[in-house]
This record gives sequence, structure tokens and C-alpha cells, in this order.
Amino acid sequence: MVDQIKKILIGRPLKNEAIHGEKYKVFWGLPILASDPISSVGYAGEEILLALVPAIGALSFMYLTYISLAIIALLVILTFSYSQTISAYTNGGGAYIVATDNLGHIAGVTAGTALAIDYMLTVAVSISSGVAQLTSAFSSLAPYSVLICILVLSFLMIGNLRGIKESSRIFSIPTYAFIVGSFAMIIIGIVKIKLGMVNTSAPMQQLKANGAVTIFLILKAFSNGCTALTGVEAVSNAVPNFQTPASKHAKKTLWLLSIFVLLIFGGISILANMYHVVPVEGKTVLNQIAFYVFGKNFMFYFFTATSILILVLAANTAYSDFPLLMSIMGKDGYVPRQFSMRGDRLSFSNGIIVLSAIAAILIIVFRGDVTLLLPLYAIGAFSSFTLSQFGMVIRWRKIKGKWWKVKAFVNGFGALTTAVVVLIIAFEKFVAGAWIVIIVTPLLVLMFMRVKKHYVALTKQLNIKTTELKSFSMEKSSYRNRVIVPLESINKSSIRALRFAKTISDNVVAFNISLDEDHANKIREKYSMINTEIPLIVKYSPFRKVVSPLIKFIESEEYDYQKGDMITVILPQFSVKSWWQKIMHNNTTYFIQKELLKHKHIVVAIMPLQLKDDNFVLNNPKYD
Amino acid sequence: MVDQIKKILIGRPLKNEAIHGEKYKVFWGLPILASDPISSVGYAGEEILLALVPAIGALSFMYLTYISLAIIALLVILTFSYSQTISAYTNGGGAYIVATDNLGHIAGVTAGTALAIDYMLTVAVSISSGVAQLTSAFSSLAPYSVLICILVLSFLMIGNLRGIKESSRIFSIPTYAFIVGSFAMIIIGIVKIKLGMVNTSAPMQQLKANGAVTIFLILKAFSNGCTALTGVEAVSNAVPNFQTPASKHAKKTLWLLSIFVLLIFGGISILANMYHVVPVEGKTVLNQIAFYVFGKNFMFYFFTATSILILVLAANTAYSDFPLLMSIMGKDGYVPRQFSMRGDRLSFSNGIIVLSAIAAILIIVFRGDVTLLLPLYAIGAFSSFTLSQFGMVIRWRKIKGKWWKVKAFVNGFGALTTAVVVLIIAFEKFVAGAWIVIIVTPLLVLMFMRVKKHYVALTKQLNIKTTELKSFSMEKSSYRNRVIVPLESINKSSIRALRFAKTISDNVVAFNISLDEDHANKIREKYSMINTEIPLIVKYSPFRKVVSPLIKFIESEEYDYQKGDMITVILPQFSVKSWWQKIMHNNTTYFIQKELLKHKHIVVAIMPLQLKDDNFVLNNPKYD
Repeated sequence: MVDQIKKILIGRPLKNEAIHGEKYKVFWGLPILASDPISSVGYAGEEILLALVPAIGALSFMYLTYISLAIIALLVILTFSYSQTISAYTNGGGAYIVATDNLGHIAGVTAGTALAIDYMLTVAVSISSGVAQLTSAFSSLAPYSVLICILVLSFLMIGNLRGIKESSRIFSIPTYAFIVGSFAMIIIGIVKIKLGMVNTSAPMQQLKANGAVTIFLILKAFSNGCTALTGVEAVSNAVPNFQTPASKHAKKTLWLLSIFVLLIFGGISILANMYHVVPVEGKTVLNQIAFYVFGKNFMFYFFTATSILILVLAANTAYSDFPLLMSIMGKDGYVPRQFSMRGDRLSFSNGIIVLSAIAAILIIVFRGDVTLLLPLYAIGAFSSFTLSQFGMVIRWRKIKGKWWKVKAFVNGFGALTTAVVVLIIAFEKFVAGAWIVIIVTPLLVLMFMRVKKHYVALTKQLNIKTTELKSFSMEKSSYRNRVIVPLESINKSSIRALRFAKTISDNVVAFNISLDEDHANKIREKYSMINTEIPLIVKYSPFRKVVSPLIKFIESEEYDYQKGDMITVILPQFSVKSWWQKIMHNNTTYFIQKELLKHKHIVVAIMPLQLKDDNFVLNNPKYD
Repeated sequence: MVDQIKKILIGRPLKNEAIHGEKYKVFWGLPILASDPISSVGYAGEEILLALVPAIGALSFMYLTYISLAIIALLVILTFSYSQTISAYTNGGGAYIVATDNLGHIAGVTAGTALAIDYMLTVAVSISSGVAQLTSAFSSLAPYSVLICILVLSFLMIGNLRGIKESSRIFSIPTYAFIVGSFAMIIIGIVKIKLGMVNTSAPMQQLKANGAVTIFLILKAFSNGCTALTGVEAVSNAVPNFQTPASKHAKKTLWLLSIFVLLIFGGISILANMYHVVPVEGKTVLNQIAFYVFGKNFMFYFFTATSILILVLAANTAYSDFPLLMSIMGKDGYVPRQFSMRGDRLSFSNGIIVLSAIAAILIIVFRGDVTLLLPLYAIGAFSSFTLSQFGMVIRWRKIKGKWWKVKAFVNGFGALTTAVVVLIIAFEKFVAGAWIVIIVTPLLVLMFMRVKKHYVALTKQLNIKTTELKSFSMEKSSYRNRVIVPLESINKSSIRALRFAKTISDNVVAFNISLDEDHANKIREKYSMINTEIPLIVKYSPFRKVVSPLIKFIESEEYDYQKGDMITVILPQFSVKSWWQKIMHNNTTYFIQKELLKHKHIVVAIMPLQLKDDNFVLNNPKYD
């Protein structure tokens, strides 16, 4: 039944060959990779204003312009910097790979961890922001926002477990629709102001300022705005997904993406400035602008719908990036290898499930509130930018080549700028939540290094050198192979186990644990009637324990255990079909198995006994 | 670590011999068995008034007197009736046993189920009422009442898992203290009124009536009051716990118990009437009476404390009754046998845990509100009274003896009266919650009958007649014993498995599942270097499945599977210590085991491989 549900939700298993899906050029690649940075106009501008307005009131709009320009400058630096990464790493140059390659494992794992945390936050922030756009337009949904977030998250999880690549082209539509809608809004909005069709003074009256313009205030607003740039690294990860010439297509995509972010982020900042839109409870800035520009007509709902969809798509990009990153780190042994295994539908199911679980926790803990989540965001992305760009500098120094000093300068400037941004965010947002990321990141790095150490030790312990293989003779194994068959009573199942024991060893004992003498005598008597030379050992268990008397017996002189003996304990297990029968049986078997397997030299052999259907047995005279 | 915590909370394991604790006479027996019915003065009177006051206002107090008299009459009938059960069933005459004995299995299981449901409600109602007394005296605790209920419940669960019988004498003190406190309150309360020391007219002014005296109203109030009588059957269950002459001691206890219930329930009804105490939000009637009689002095707090303690004790009686009932039903095969197994501390742990879980759900769903829980209560107890007393009638008819017709009349009258009460409660309380019990009871009865059927079928299937035992020769087993060793790679663990395979069979194959040709060739090459004649089979798994290619191979012509062949599949399992390593490993093994065991003739042998500590391996040159 579980299998049935899984099949309906997730789809039929796919063959390995199906993995090589279609590759894309710029037109289809752009919308997939751009949704994350473009969609951040849903919250970045608003969060800049949220930092400024309470402190400096109407002055905020002037500073919004300056800060937006700074962020756009940062975008340009990053674009140049990443453009070079694309050329250098045509097999995909994620921060983890670039940092590992040039700066060593610890830097690589740190970059990977920072990015992993950022992907989790991308999901939580984008979904929360998307739902905030929805509840701005339909305020009656506001009380259910966390619930709606979790529904959207579940939908993304199931979709990604299915493997949604097949239909990725459909997902391009909302991105282009949002781009078109944004351009329309920006142009109409500016034209309306220029033609004097809008009265913009009204909202300004309410603004009360209680602070002054300080460098801290500006930096706080700036670090809020930096969240707009998370996700620009996605193109460099995705180079192998492009059609040849892949790096040319990828670079084109990166530049186009930057231009769109520049135009839309800049344009919406201009609109916020012109219309003096102020963040209020329950209405996002983006939604207010759309309302002022369009009024409540078709375009308003169209724009709202596309802004929700592009935010959901942004969350979805983390669903391809995070599991892929985990699978690469899993192959290198830094996270459990389960992350590297593809599920039935060729998606990295474990990564998808872990991402969903953590994003769900983030959404629930932070009540789906973008403003509360944002201090945790961006710090991871910018840390990984720094490590990756710094890695590129080291690379240029090593391989040299034409113009290498210019290239090193470009990446070095990118590394320096993003490092400064990391410090600004860490400082400005420390109390508000960045401390969580600052504490969790090194802990995760330590944990990943510990996992790696375990895998290295495991391999060393299990590994056999090729030269040694010949010396492992199969004939040498001359240890005694002994069998113990625990019996609860003498029935068909125990007879079957005894028979099996005899076929695998000449050294078999039957073992019974009795709670009292009465029961012990009955067992002995019944056992004596079977025609077998296998001895029966009966032990009394004062504490109603099963495993410890058995272990005690094995260690006793009576059993004459010798070093090297291999003891197989045969446990029968009922194979039943209905769930309630499963609950009734086999718990004990599983428990005993777990306890016994703690002792080396004990092999647990589980013998299934397929039970007939109850009605069949009761109606069959054979069983009377 | 889990074991450590368990030892601290639950205590060290006890030996089987420790089970025969001290038996009690009347003085120690009474408080243990009486706490349930006596404690119901904490809610019964209040719930009668809650039914009456909103409808008929000041008239309520007159009808409170009549209804209390009716309930006392019912108590007397039950006492006569159960007194006879005690004489007849000296080994304990719970409703399940009496009904099974005289009316057959379905009636017995029905009585057992009804009683089981009632025990669950005893826990939920008594704890909720105890906490209501507490929050009446200390209103600042009111917002945390559900939390406090759950804490008390956890305390009872842990205490009972420890087995609290040893210290049961300490538990007698609160019962006697409550009896003393109640008597003091009743006497002082009546004296104060008679001496004109209290002005009773004040609370009466607020009473507004919006209904009339109808038969439905009276019956509703009556069915609320009947909850006072749940638990009187406890003495008849507990006969074997008394010192000889057990039934004489038990009968004396039953009569004393009835007299105390009569005096305290009656006395408090009189006080409620005299002081015109009206149920209000946040203050229990009992607490109000104590306040009017004593004022806020020592006696008020003493009485409040004992009323809380006796209610907790009442919940505690269900903790001895329910697990015992389940263990008896488990031995008869109506509930899973796990309920009949004693835990480390000789208590029936599974029954205790199930009782706690269901009571916790009831408390949480009904927000610890006695008034909401009460419609579910009493219907189970009175159903089991009816079945048990009706069973006694049948018994007298069968065994006859001196005065049998009189005895049959007494039990018959008890059965009839309680049957009428069941109908009244079911009718009056149907909408308010009795429907839940009316639906759940038959479903549980069906479930228990289904469990029994499964056990009967199981026994039939496994059972070997004593006469047939000789014919089960151990020598006949001539099936082929074949072994398959799945290999992921060639390492020490797989070599060990291959060696073990050779000692248990001459028919061994190694089996590898490869995802691609590359991997397959590598495995083949490495395998060819080992000095063994065991053939290696490599299969390609297009769906990344492990189990199905193996099953397919076994069923293929290549393997030449013949009916009766027993195939042992050897799975290595890493034995690791830390929890995170446990998460990393062994999930796959457990999954494969589960899948393979669905196929009969496949035995799964699990070989533990004790891993050395990571640091030891990494620092030991032997592993380089």
C-alpha cells in the first residue's frame, strides 16, 4: 500500500539511462537559473526600506537609490568574477569544487557548507516571500500563511522526488512572464508619474523618523539588500547542462541574468522612490507598487501571480542545487554516502528530503516571516563567493597563462568585495540571527570532517591491497562453525529451524529459556519425543531476559567456546501480510537480533516462516 | 545511555520471585481500593448541579438531594450484588472473567473492553479533576492545567513502570486523610449552618433559570452523578490480594467502602444544598464548599491537598487494573501477547504505556476538562456491571445451591438496574460524547476477536500433536542448502562472508550488482585474483535496485532453483558504537533483510563486523 501511494506521488522508477536529459541553450537556461536572483526583488528592496524608514523617514528613498546602486555595482563585480569561473571550470565550478581544488579540503568543505545553508534559506525565504505576496493580494489568507508555506514546500518536495527536469520548459514561462510584467510595471509606473497621473504625496505624511543617518544604518540597509544577489553563482555550477559550446552559452546566460537583475531591481527601486512606498504590515512593497501602478485590474493580478510563481521557482532552484552539492560531497565522503544515491526517479531523494525537512523547520520556527529569516540569509552565499573567488586567484597564480594578472585581479577584487560584504552582514545582523549561521557553519564543517575521517578509517580497515588478494586463501578457514537454535516451544517452526541447523553444521544445540520449572519440564519432555541427537539446553531466566542468558551460556565453560568459533543463532520470523500482524510479531526477533549482533562471532540467521491466511488455516481440515 | 536513563527512571530489574508481594487485610486494602469511588465526590456532585442549575436555578438543590438518594440506592444495590461475586470468585471476579465464565467469550470480551475503556477514562477524568482542584485553589496555575495533567500522568506512568506496589502503604495515607478531612468538613459545615454562623443567601441571587423540571433533565443529572460509582467493582477483582480468609476481608472492605462513599457523597450533597454552591468557571464545587466551611485557613489547604491526592490515587488504581486486565486478555489471546509479559520491574509495561498514551490523548483532545470528558465515562463501567451481574444470575441458575433464587434475584436486580442506567447514560449523553464509546466499543470487540482468531490459526499452523512428534525425523531433511554472498566490493568484510559461506555449504555463489560496465569489470578483475572456486555472478541493475535483481537471479534458469532448496543470503553488517555511525550504516542491510524475508526458502544470515575505533585505525601502521 505504501508502495502504491509512493508510485502515485513519485511516479514509476526510471532507468539509469534516463539520466542524460536534454541540455539547454541560453533561452531555456536563463529562466531556470535566473529565477533565484530575479525573484529576490520580492523582498530585497522592501528589507532595505524596513531598515531605513523607521529611522530616517522620508530620507529613506534617497538612500534607497544609493544602496541600490551599490548593490548593482556589486552585481557587476560578481558577474565579471564568475564569468571567469565559467571559462575555467567547464565541468561545473561550484564553490565547493573551486575552493577544494585551489585552497584545499577544509576551505572546500567550508564553502560547501556555507552554500548548503544558503540553499536551505533560499527555500525558506523564497517560499515565505511568495506566500507573503499572496496574502498581500488576498488578505483573508494571512492567518494561514505558515500552513500555505508548508503546502508549497510539500508540493516542491514531491515534484522534485518525481524529478521535474522533464518538464522544466514549462517552468520557464513564469520567469519570462515575471520579467515582462516587471518591465511593464516599471515603464507604466514611470510614465504615469511623468505625466502627473498619480498623487504620490499621501503615503509620505505618515512617516515619522526617530533616528539619524549613520554609517551603521546604511550598512544595515545594504546588508539587507545583498540578499538580492544570492543565486548568481548558479550559472557557474550549471555549465555542463548547457549545449556546446557550453561555457559560451553559460557566460551569455550569466550576463543576461545580470542585466535583468540590474534592470528589474533598479527599476523597482526607482518606483519605490517615486511612489514613496513604505513597508506596512500585511502588504509587501512589491504588491503596493503593483497596486499603485496598475490599480486592482488584470495586470495587478497577473503581476502578483507571476511574482508568487517566480519565488516558488527560486525555491525550486535550491532543490536542484542542494541535492547535487550533497551528492558531490557524499562521493568525496564528507556527508553520508546515502546522499550520493539516486532514488527510483533518478533524483537524489535523500538530499531533497533533508532540504525539505530543514526548510520546514525554518519556516515554522520563523513563522514564515521573511524579515525574521533574512538575517540568516546571504551570509552563507557571500562566504562561498569569497572562498570561490579567492580560489580562482590562487588558480591564476598557479597556471598563469595569457593575461593572468588581469584575471587574478578581477577575481581578487570579487573576493575582497564579497569578503567585506560577509563582514558587514555578520556584524550588522549578528544579534538578529546571523549568529546562528556563524555558530552552525563551523559545527557542520567539523561534523563533515568527522564523517570523512570515519570513511577513511573504514576504507583502511576493510581494504585489501591488490597484491595481498592472492594470499587470502579460502581454504584456510578452519574455525568451528557452531549453531544455536533458541526454542520457545516445540512446534513446526522450531523443528524447521533445527533441521536447517543440521544442514549447516554438525555442532548444534537447542536452547530454551524458561521462566519456571514447570515450563522447563514440559519442554524437556516434549523435546525428548523428537527423534534427534541435538542436545537441548534449558536455562532459567530470573529477569525475564532472553539475550543475556544466551550470551552467558555461550561464555560458560559448559559451551566450551574457543576463540575463532563462529556461532550462528537461528531466529524464526513470521512473515505476515497485514500491518497489525506485523506489529504483533517480529518485534522480539528484531530486538534479539540487534542485541546479538553486538557480539562478534555471532551470526544471526533469520528464517522466515510464511504464515497461511487465518481463514485458510481455520477452514482447512489438514490443520485440525 | 538509554539503558542508563531507563535504570534511573524505572529502577533495576527485579527477579521473578519478587512478584509475590505482601497481601493486605481490610485496613490497608480499603484505601487502595476505595480511592476511585470516594474521589469521585471531586466531580460527581458538581456535574449533577451543572446539569440542573442553568435550567431550574434554585430548585436544583432540592433535586440534587433526590438524585443523590437515587445514586446511593444504586450503590447499595451494587454492593449487595458484588458482595455475592466476591464469595463466588475467590480468585478474582472481574467482569471479564465472570462474563466469560457464564455468558461466553463475546460477552466476556465485551465486558473486558467496556472496562478497559473505563479505566482509560478513570485516568483522564481523575487527573483532570485533581488538577481542577489545584487550579481552583491556585488560579494562577489555570493556564497550565493540561501541562500539569500530562506531568502527573508521566509521574504515574514512571511510578507504575517501577512497580509501586512495594510502597503502597504510603499511598493509603492520602485516602484516610481525605476521609478524615471530608468528615471534618461535613460536620463543621452542618454545625456552622445550624448555629447560624454563615449567611447562605448571597450566592442564590445570581441564579437565573431558563428551563423547567423535566424527566430528561433529571435523568441527565442522574447520569452525571452515576460517575460516582465507577470503581466499586475493584474489590471483586482484587480478592486474591487479601490475606486469608480473603473473601471475608474483601467483603468487609466492600461494605466499608460503600459506607464511606455513602457518607461522603451524601454529606457533600447536603453541604452543597445548605451553602447553595453553584458551579462557576475556574472554581470546583468541592473547593467552594471547603472555602465556605473553613475559610482560607490551614484546613482549606489540607482538604484541597488531600482531594488532589486522592484523585491522583484514583487514577493510579486504573494503573493496576488496566494492565492486569490486558494481561489476562493477552493470555487468552484477545490482545497481543506482549500485554502479558512483565517488564524489568515485574509490571506489565506494555499495558502501562498504552494506558498512559491513550489517557494523554484524551486529556489533550478534551483539554483536561472534566465536563467534556464525563459523557464518555461511566457507560463502560455500567455496561460491564450489567454483564458481570447477569453472568452471576446464569451462574446461580446453573450451580443452584442454598438460597440460590434469592442470590439470583439480588444479582438480577443489580443487572437490571445497571442496564437501565446504561440506557439512560447512552441516551442522555449520546450527542455529548457517549457516541464515541458506543462506536469504539464494538470496533474494539471485533478487533480483539480478530486477534484471537489469528492466534488460534497460528497455533493450529505451528502445533504438532504429541503423537506426531516421533515422526518428525531430523535425518530426513535432504534439501539443498545453498548460499549467496552479495558483494559490493572485494574487501575484508566480503572475504569473511565468503569464508563463512564455505563452512556452511558446498553450494555458494558470490553476487554483485553493478550500475555500469566499468564497475562490473573492476569487480570481476579483482575477484579473479582471490584464490577461490566460488563463482561470481555480476548483474546489471537498471533501476538501482538491490533486492529484485537478486530474486530474479534466484528464479532464473541460470541458478537452477529447485523446490525445497533453502537459500541463505549472507549480509554483512557493521557493528558501530556511536549513534551517528549507526545512522550512517546498516539501514540498507535492514531494508534488504526485510525485503528478502518476504520470500520463503530464503534465510538471511547477518554477519556483524566490529569496526575498530576510527582513531585507532588511522594511527595504526598495520592498516597503512
